Amino acid sequence: MKDFEKRAEVLIEALPHIRKYSGKILLVKYGGSAMTDEKLQRAVMGDLVLLSLIGVKVVLVHGGGPEITDMLKKLGKETKFVNGLRVTDKETAEVVQMVLAGKVNKHLVTLVQSLGGRAVGLSGADGGLIAAKQMDPELGYVGEIESVDVRPVIDLLEKGYIPVISTTGCDAEGNVYNINADTAAARIAGQLRAESLINMTDTAGLLEDEKDESTLISRIFVSDAQRMINQGQLSGGMIPKVGCCIEAIRRGVKKVFIIDGRVPHSILIETLTDAGMGTMFMSGENYDG
Amino acid sequence: MKDFEKRAEVLIEALPHIRKYSGKILLVKYGGSAMTDEKLQRAVMGDLVLLSLIGVKVVLVHGGGPEITDMLKKLGKETKFVNGLRVTDKETAEVVQMVLAGKVNKHLVTLVQSLGGRAVGLSGADGGLIAAKQMDPELGYVGEIESVDVRPVIDLLEKGYIPVISTTGCDAEGNVYNINADTAAARIAGQLRAESLINMTDTAGLLEDEKDESTLISRIFVSDAQRMINQGQLSGGMIPKVGCCIEAIRRGVKKVFIIDGRVPHSILIETLTDAGMGTMFMSGENYDG
Amino acid sequence: MKDFEKRAEVLIEALPHIRKYSGKILLVKYGGSAMTDEKLQRAVMGDLVLLSLIGVKVVLVHGGGPEITDMLKKLGKETKFVNGLRVTDKETAEVVQMVLAGKVNKHLVTLVQSLGGRAVGLSGADGGLIAAKQMDPELGYVGEIESVDVRPVIDLLEKGYIPVISTTGCDAEGNVYNINADTAAARIAGQLRAESLINMTDTAGLLEDEKDESTLISRIFVSDAQRMINQGQLSGGMIPKVGCCIEAIRRGVKKVFIIDGRVPHSILIETLTDAGMGTMFMSGENYDG
Amino acid sequence: MKDFEKRAEVLIEALPHIRKYSGKILLVKYGGSAMTDEKLQRAVMGDLVLLSLIGVKVVLVHGGGPEITDMLKKLGKETKFVNGLRVTDKETAEVVQMVLAGKVNKHLVTLVQSLGGRAVGLSGADGGLIAAKQMDPELGYVGEIESVDVRPVIDLLEKGYIPVISTTGCDAEGNVYNINADTAAARIAGQLRAESLINMTDTAGLLEDEKDESTLISRIFVSDAQRMINQGQLSGGMIPKVGCCIEAIRRGVKKVFIIDGRVPHSILIETLTDAGMGTMFMSGENYDG
Amino acid sequence: MKDFEKRAEVLIEALPHIRKYSGKILLVKYGGSAMTDEKLQRAVMGDLVLLSLIGVKVVLVHGGGPEITDMLKKLGKETKFVNGLRVTDKETAEVVQMVLAGKVNKHLVTLVQSLGGRAVGLSGADGGLIAAKQMDPELGYVGEIESVDVRPVIDLLEKGYIPVISTTGCDAEGNVYNINADTAAARIAGQLRAESLINMTDTAGLLEDEKDESTLISRIFVSDAQRMINQGQLSGGMIPKVGCCIEAIRRGVKKVFIIDGRVPHSILIETLTDAGMGTMFMSGENYDG
Amino acid sequence: MKDFEKRAEVLIEALPHIRKYSGKILLVKYGGSAMTDEKLQRAVMGDLVLLSLIGVKVVLVHGGGPEITDMLKKLGKETKFVNGLRVTDKETAEVVQMVLAGKVNKHLVTLVQSLGGRAVGLSGADGGLIAAKQMDPELGYVGEIESVDVRPVIDLLEKGYIPVISTTGCDAEGNVYNINADTAAARIAGQLRAESLINMTDTAGLLEDEKDESTLISRIFVSDAQRMINQGQLSGGMIPKVGCCIEAIRRGVKKVFIIDGRVPHSILIETLTDAGMGTMFMSGENYDG
Repeated sequence: MKDFEKRAEVLIEALPHIRKYSGKILLVKYGGSAMTDEKLQRAVMGDLVLLSLIGVKVVLVHGGGPEITDMLKKLGKETKFVNGLRVTDKETAEVVQMVLAGKVNKHLVTLVQSLGGRAVGLSGADGGLIAAKQMDPELGYVGEIESVDVRPVIDLLEKGYIPVISTTGCDAEGNVYNINADTAAARIAGQLRAESLINMTDTAGLLEDEKDESTLISRIFVSDAQRMINQGQLSGGMIPKVGCCIEAIRRGVKKVFIIDGRVPHSILIETLTDAGMGTMFMSGENYDG
Repeated sequence: MKDFEKRAEVLIEALPHIRKYSGKILLVKYGGSAMTDEKLQRAVMGDLVLLSLIGVKVVLVHGGGPEITDMLKKLGKETKFVNGLRVTDKETAEVVQMVLAGKVNKHLVTLVQSLGGRAVGLSGADGGLIAAKQMDPELGYVGEIESVDVRPVIDLLEKGYIPVISTTGCDAEGNVYNINADTAAARIAGQLRAESLINMTDTAGLLEDEKDESTLISRIFVSDAQRMINQGQLSGGMIPKVGCCIEAIRRGVKKVFIIDGRVPHSILIETLTDAGMGTMFMSGENYDG
Repeated sequence: MKDFEKRAEVLIEALPHIRKYSGKILLVKYGGSAMTDEKLQRAVMGDLVLLSLIGVKVVLVHGGGPEITDMLKKLGKETKFVNGLRVTDKETAEVVQMVLAGKVNKHLVTLVQSLGGRAVGLSGADGGLIAAKQMDPELGYVGEIESVDVRPVIDLLEKGYIPVISTTGCDAEGNVYNINADTAAARIAGQLRAESLINMTDTAGLLEDEKDESTLISRIFVSDAQRMINQGQLSGGMIPKVGCCIEAIRRGVKKVFIIDGRVPHSILIETLTDAGMGTMFMSGENYDG
Repeated sequence: MKDFEKRAEVLIEALPHIRKYSGKILLVKYGGSAMTDEKLQRAVMGDLVLLSLIGVKVVLVHGGGPEITDMLKKLGKETKFVNGLRVTDKETAEVVQMVLAGKVNKHLVTLVQSLGGRAVGLSGADGGLIAAKQMDPELGYVGEIESVDVRPVIDLLEKGYIPVISTTGCDAEGNVYNINADTAAARIAGQLRAESLINMTDTAGLLEDEKDESTLISRIFVSDAQRMINQGQLSGGMIPKVGCCIEAIRRGVKKVFIIDGRVPHSILIETLTDAGMGTMFMSGENYDG
Repeated sequence: MKDFEKRAEVLIEALPHIRKYSGKILLVKYGGSAMTDEKLQRAVMGDLVLLSLIGVKVVLVHGGGPEITDMLKKLGKETKFVNGLRVTDKETAEVVQMVLAGKVNKHLVTLVQSLGGRAVGLSGADGGLIAAKQMDPELGYVGEIESVDVRPVIDLLEKGYIPVISTTGCDAEGNVYNINADTAAARIAGQLRAESLINMTDTAGLLEDEKDESTLISRIFVSDAQRMINQGQLSGGMIPKVGCCIEAIRRGVKKVFIIDGRVPHSILIETLTDAGMGTMFMSGENYDG
Repeated sequence: MKDFEKRAEVLIEALPHIRKYSGKILLVKYGGSAMTDEKLQRAVMGDLVLLSLIGVKVVLVHGGGPEITDMLKKLGKETKFVNGLRVTDKETAEVVQMVLAGKVNKHLVTLVQSLGGRAVGLSGADGGLIAAKQMDPELGYVGEIESVDVRPVIDLLEKGYIPVISTTGCDAEGNVYNINADTAAARIAGQLRAESLINMTDTAGLLEDEKDESTLISRIFVSDAQRMINQGQLSGGMIPKVGCCIEAIRRGVKKVFIIDGRVPHSILIETLTDAGMGTMFMSGENYDG
């Protein structure tokens, strides 16, 4: 019986958190191990279904790195990177869209459905969600977001679905572009006036010392985060990721998190328990420093 | 971190239960220790607020025995019982209503509100909820339910409130009657086509041997429960309580429980965890016996 | 037949008045003889039901002085007054709430229902209607209104009920406070942006000479009414009553009346006939004097 | 003051009647002196506006006899009657429609509007309200109702208007037919599932002895009314009028009245006072006779 | 088969035009040959039904010149014109209303209904659409528009009808006034914030040289149109017609056209094909001239 | 000008057809040349956008044969057919879904959007649209439809989108199955209670003599069509196609067509012109033969 009471306490502890998120939009940017590890994947989708069921309006934005690389290899297409951005010819862009929207997206939708949730997949083409243009002729069909029309996302939320979004975009001529998923997530969250954007990564969060997880920064002002980028304190994939968190705050998202996707149910822990995880980005300036 | 994951698991375990109750009506008949012990009271109201927040339509029906007796004593009114039913003169009936609707009810409403829920109290007079008539001239203003009009309950649920109901009734002349709260709960739950009726008592549930809690019956067909009453296996307050559970099932409530009000958060444990508590009454006949 | 035509004329005379009030909120502050005399009480409730039926959104705010005093006496509690305000210990405040919300309120609700209207009672606790704080430590649990949340009132009006309000309030700790009903009526009417607030008293209205009813003032600017208070022209209970009328006008109620509660159906006469009754308070300044 | 109270009593007497009609459809078949006398006309329209304002869904069906005859005379068209039915050539039918829909109807609509009501006129053509066919080649463009589509009437009621209906009909080829207004009123009232149909005439009601108004029949079963027709107790215009009352009851109208249009405000007297007027037709058989 | 493809191309060509008008209000001012020629009349009503069916909110405003003159002659009333405006005594004004609202209007409504559309006729009296006042005592009951209340038009559009409007107006005393249909159309279109106002006339449009249809002006700024009037380049009925087009643009109608009512289906050609017809008035100034 | 009038006539001819389809569901099963020829593809999507714009609720179900074969070849997977059904291993099923949902579907959605329509793509996984099970262990992941849940289709229609459906299905374990698009179209159309199902093929329709297009059967009873199959009059892909038409009629679709996808705009010609195309299947029996 003792155990039962403990469980009840966990539930009751969730109360103020549920109240805070009730009816609000939570956008999860999904990637890293949480996406490649099958068990973690299942845990993440379970979290989303639970949140959706208790009244949170959940939106999922996913990338699909390894599966794209894999398919391109199978098809004998070589992948070239310039400044960490994939150079993308027309055919490659179409493979990217095919893998994202036809494989990864459908796999996630199927998983949500099998866990009792209701999901519909969207690509940037559906309902004109992401209008794109060429970022740089050198990079080919790598797209920059021209504009975002979140009506299809809102329409699906109103009908009770979890929109699962793969981030390709189209231009007026119908060309397909590969769009960075972090950037897209920030833009869509901003346009949706989301309560919260959760960015899942393979680190504990933002670290003072990138090699030492004990130096985790729990809360940081975007001004300070910007300073860390400017002063070269961050490296590799962390730079664009933090950049997008800053961007999301600037576009009006209330709370932005980088959380550890390697911990099972890290989304639930962050949203429904008193235990904070990872790093929370706050608007404003830190006037101490 | 281990602890976090455990908490997440509790939450995730709640998923199928939440789905089951989502948008459904759950009526709690509140009484016993859960009502007199201040800490348990707070735990019950917290449970209701949580359930309400995650989309369950919660209705609370309460009695108020001790406080009524107390007030009658203070006012120098003697209480007379006939067959376990309070004999009630006109003045006493009005004191009962005053204490139930003006003291107990408002106290519970205040508690729900202070825990972040939204509640409005109803007596049988409000919106014509309970039309009553005299049960037996000998008993005075002890009422029998003539009819139940659940529109005010539904109206409040639609507006997002937890209706908190004290069970007095009126006749066409405006006379006030004391109404048995268990009976009223069964009738209201039936009329509301409630998913579930939870009856809180000071026992572990229905017992094979009333003196031995280890003989708890987890599930019982109403036909068998009726047989237990007929064969004299039950005694005291348990007889009308079980009778009302049977009545509720007959009036169309899907699931009826007697649970142990002495265990903190027993409502949450019953509704949101895999652990069953107390006794569940099922419609139909047990053809084995 | 002549008589019939006369009746029809009365009805047809009501036409422009009905049009004026149609769909608007009319708050009646109920007290005095109209409340203690059973026949007058019945007449008032009949008036409210009629107005409600023809499309006026009626709200009733009641006090309960004599019944409270009566109950306190029965319970052996002595009543102490300081500056016309009841000094209220914790137990007394709870008795006040019990009598108001459990006795007076339910009696009025029952009466409205029996006359064919639909009413639901509210106390300051229900839906968090009145948040209160201590006015003055010397007075104990006499409350000052911290804030008013009229959502439960609007919710009930939308569902077609006459909200019947007893004016106690709660603080965040769940303490109960006695709140002056005139003040509460003015605040609630203001928050509701009521068309009209009718204050029922035991005088013909505001009099030039308090001893001579023939000196009734039919219309008065609030500035002039304030001057009458300041210059000591008013006495006793009339001072706070007029003060509340002024307050209601300042908080945006369009028309505020003091009418004679001793005249049967004085509310109907004021609202639906060409005959004005009592005193009407108007915003603005009288530039003649 | 005495007078005021009397007025209030009249209003309060209206209460149960208002409740009975609230939200229900009342169709008035308008004709006779109530239509030709300007003062009575104004009184009738005032009654309708009042009823509409207090929540009754009022529909007006009018004829236009004298004005049609008048216009035909001015245009040099001779009127021929066969069995009390106007023989109608094509041009005459168009004059009938013109006078009804363009003169009488617009005059009534204007009157309602000037009294503060909201009215829109409909002819049988508007929204396809009345589909007609030729009754008898000998009678020319005298129409029989083929079918009635009350959607335009309901649409206008929903938008808060009093539909004012002139009873011409069209066939598929667009030919205009003169339609008997009593018949049309009975059909439209039946289709609308009206609560009540009031037929205004220039008699006190149905009389035992047509020459003696003191023999007024207050209530009559339709079977008895039919018998009076069959046995030749009725004469002239009373036969089709009573026939239509019977028809309306058969088509599901709950209450059908013939009232005296010569008495000012007879509609209000019938609907909102305890005084019955004229004759009420009841469904069913009188088993006494 | 070739022919089929051609038809499909016409339909597909309509696509962008349909999109442009979808859900928008198009007001057609109807008059001239398109109204007197039975075949053209049928074609116009067919066009309106088609546009209504594909989602355009169509409003028809009609005059009725010849039929009015005709009826006045039959009734022996002489018509007197002053400055091209009919001098109108009381009786004449009532004949005008009768013919417009009872004959022309009902004929058009019948035609729309027989073509499968849904129409309800409105005069200026219905729903208080046009409040008028005397323009000039010398002209008698020739009215100037005092105010326009388009609620009845919007109510009918919302219920899916084509409002067919005849342009008489009333004053507060219920007097009827003859109102210029072009002026009324401009005012109603402005109040409705119509997308487009189409004025059907018996010319090809606005001509540089009134005698030479090859000098048709396709598009003109209202400032230039005003100059043409001021410099006396226009004559006769064209002056008020162009004046009303200018007025409509000034009152916020987006696009105003004068089109050739003599060409069958000229409305469809203007609205749904790439072929422009007649003259389009544009807001703004032509800075070239 | 002549040409303009011709165009108007085409539009006006569409009137009764538009009325017939207005607000109804039209499901197009898309395949064959109409899908592989880029110009035809554009014409089909234009037709759908036009129909959608004028109020038809359009649903598109597509297959994707050639592109699937192409991709399988590129990936070095051999395609094996048994009884005209592709034998499908797990990996192949996932390639099928990827190509259908990620390539073909997104290409069509993009095309609709670029033509001004609004489309969202759905696979059988989205919203649990198609629940599938294994048809035959020998065929691997070739699925049979277990059940169809058209809620996501209806939800998208209600929000104004053209649902574009690729026909894969999932089982409870999340396995992907290839589903025959004709069968899926018939099932979905039946469940939607579609007005019409149009099956686009590369023949003129159902032919008496498969080698002679002049023997086109315009209308056929399903009983006769079934007889043609039974008697071996049909061959190859025509057998399942006709079978599905019969199935659709049996499941309650009102009208089912096989039309010639090689003719540009054949959908518009069939739906909006008087010219019938291809073969229409009718319910019932031909009692002549």
